[in-house]
Amino acid sequence: MTPYRAIEWKNDRLILLDQRLLPHQTVYVTLRDAAGVAEAIQNMTIRGAPAIGAAAAYGLALEAVKPWPDARTMQEGLKVSGTALIAARPTAINLAWAVNRVLAVNQNPVITTPELLREKIVAEADAIANLEIANNIQIGLNALELWPQEVTFLHHCNTGALATVDYGTALGVIRAAHDHGKKVFVYVDETRPRLQGARLTAWELDQLGIPYKIIADGASGYVMRNCGVTAVTVGCDRVAANGDTANKIGTYNLAIVARAHQVPCYVVGPTSTVDLNTPNGAAIPIEERDPEEITKIGSQWLAPSGAPAFNPAFDITPAEYITGIITEQGIAAPPFEQSLREMVEKAQRNPVANGE
Amino acid sequence: MTPYRAIEWKNDRLILLDQRLLPHQTVYVTLRDAAGVAEAIQNMTIRGAPAIGAAAAYGLALEAVKPWPDARTMQEGLKVSGTALIAARPTAINLAWAVNRVLAVNQNPVITTPELLREKIVAEADAIANLEIANNIQIGLNALELWPQEVTFLHHCNTGALATVDYGTALGVIRAAHDHGKKVFVYVDETRPRLQGARLTAWELDQLGIPYKIIADGASGYVMRNCGVTAVTVGCDRVAANGDTANKIGTYNLAIVARAHQVPCYVVGPTSTVDLNTPNGAAIPIEERDPEEITKIGSQWLAPSGAPAFNPAFDITPAEYITGIITEQGIAAPPFEQSLREMVEKAQRNPVANGE
Repeated sequence: MTPYRAIEWKNDRLILLDQRLLPHQTVYVTLRDAAGVAEAIQNMTIRGAPAIGAAAAYGLALEAVKPWPDARTMQEGLKVSGTALIAARPTAINLAWAVNRVLAVNQNPVITTPELLREKIVAEADAIANLEIANNIQIGLNALELWPQEVTFLHHCNTGALATVDYGTALGVIRAAHDHGKKVFVYVDETRPRLQGARLTAWELDQLGIPYKIIADGASGYVMRNCGVTAVTVGCDRVAANGDTANKIGTYNLAIVARAHQVPCYVVGPTSTVDLNTPNGAAIPIEERDPEEITKIGSQWLAPSGAPAFNPAFDITPAEYITGIITEQGIAAPPFEQSLREMVEKAQRNPVANGE
Repeated sequence: MTPYRAIEWKNDRLILLDQRLLPHQTVYVTLRDAAGVAEAIQNMTIRGAPAIGAAAAYGLALEAVKPWPDARTMQEGLKVSGTALIAARPTAINLAWAVNRVLAVNQNPVITTPELLREKIVAEADAIANLEIANNIQIGLNALELWPQEVTFLHHCNTGALATVDYGTALGVIRAAHDHGKKVFVYVDETRPRLQGARLTAWELDQLGIPYKIIADGASGYVMRNCGVTAVTVGCDRVAANGDTANKIGTYNLAIVARAHQVPCYVVGPTSTVDLNTPNGAAIPIEERDPEEITKIGSQWLAPSGAPAFNPAFDITPAEYITGIITEQGIAAPPFEQSLREMVEKAQRNPVANGE
């Protein structure tokens, strides 16, 4: 599909494309245990809600392919690793969702040998990765009806193949429009502080041959007012039952600015990102990261050295600012309490949607 | 006043603090002619609407202190230099305002010798610089009534002593609150792409002993929602007759986000930034700068090398998003057509306000 993969399972090892070094260096790291995967998630070697879910599932697979004396010891060991993986980053629900799917397989009391359990665990991690890809392709198809023949997107952060297992969510929607012959242009929010837009989305759009321009995050209002933006598309790290959405810092500002210009704002993600157990945005934990992500680039200080900064990594966009939530099961519309519940129930009946 | 000066006239030379190198290096450059000043304004060695106005006035003073054969030749020469200085940057009206003040002195047909004209021109440039300082101090005093005893500001770009001749406009307002014993905290928008907030405002707040934290521009909504912001304060590069305000890119987004949180948004500047000849924001030219200001830091590419970017340096905040415009003549309130006209007329009668 895509000529690069953020995540690959090969010879009982997990290979990750180190996203901290893109777009300047293409370096792959090989991981051998769950602790290494947890660290790679924490330090953002791998990032993007669906991608860290799949990586964490493979983190348990790495534990499963180790030698274990018996099935019970193995099951206990994997439970401990699962807890550590879930704790690596708090905001994206996909992480807990994927780990809990693997742990549910791990719990199976009928399985009596490490060999059989290993096979089931690795198969479950593969199933999660393959489900992400299938869902992303379906998401792009579901969104097609929304776009005119010439469509200008404004996109925040990175939600492409790098942020998922392949294809992408919000960027997958843009890619699907391009692949289906629409004339696509993308304004790319650079997405401070970690510049996922300027570094990763621009790099992916280059690979895909989709024309774009990078803008400062603060320029989105100017662009909407003067440059004809059809829609804002963003990913999501957790969607609460009422539609409130946690996503990369800056999404909330962008959604407010879109509303002021009557530009529709679409949240894009698989139903695995919808957490019906989280009633609303206030219940979503927001990760605060190192202030030096703002005040330094590499070893270079941007601000006076040691200057204080405040670095929430995510924000909550209240449901009222969201036009629709595009999932593999269809496009959820307000009121989201009802439409999201329907999407999740459809996904339980029919995990891989097929454009019904 | 402030232990650093962005602009100093000394021994018939103009000395500028090179703001491109702050906060890491404190380097002063000495300029000897108007062409050098125009270049320093264009490449942002000196920036900030009031500062570039004063620098341009001194640019004409540099021409005036050259040897001239007669007054008529000198007057023609200064007119040519004035035109070049005004063309250095298009958006801030202070540049044209200051140059035209000096050119009005230059026009004087009664002056018959280069020596006398030189004296008048240098005196006018000094008067402009001194007026800026006096106005800034008065602006800070005028604003005091707006702030409670504990006040948290959110500030965009840099509007301190570096952006003016001394003291500052929007940052002067913050400084005055601090100097008058209020408990002040400042959230500092880093202000991409040129990071005037992270580089310059943080540096000035360090010098002044005012506590602050730098935030990514996209985090302002999160901060307003969660951290108790009293007011947004921003400077201005040109205020149209109806109150529409051109200021550093990102100001418009910030004003929209402030409105969504019922946080007041104050524009701060001297009446020389109000241009009654510009009816509204649509009539203000917006400078577009090099895309590499977004895609590179120094020689280091942030994005894929050569990635396209769109870099408008300013945006227009419509008057409807502005709570008040704080000038040395008082605080203009909506409807701005009327209140701004009154402020400008007061300034014509009484150039240096004194807290009447």
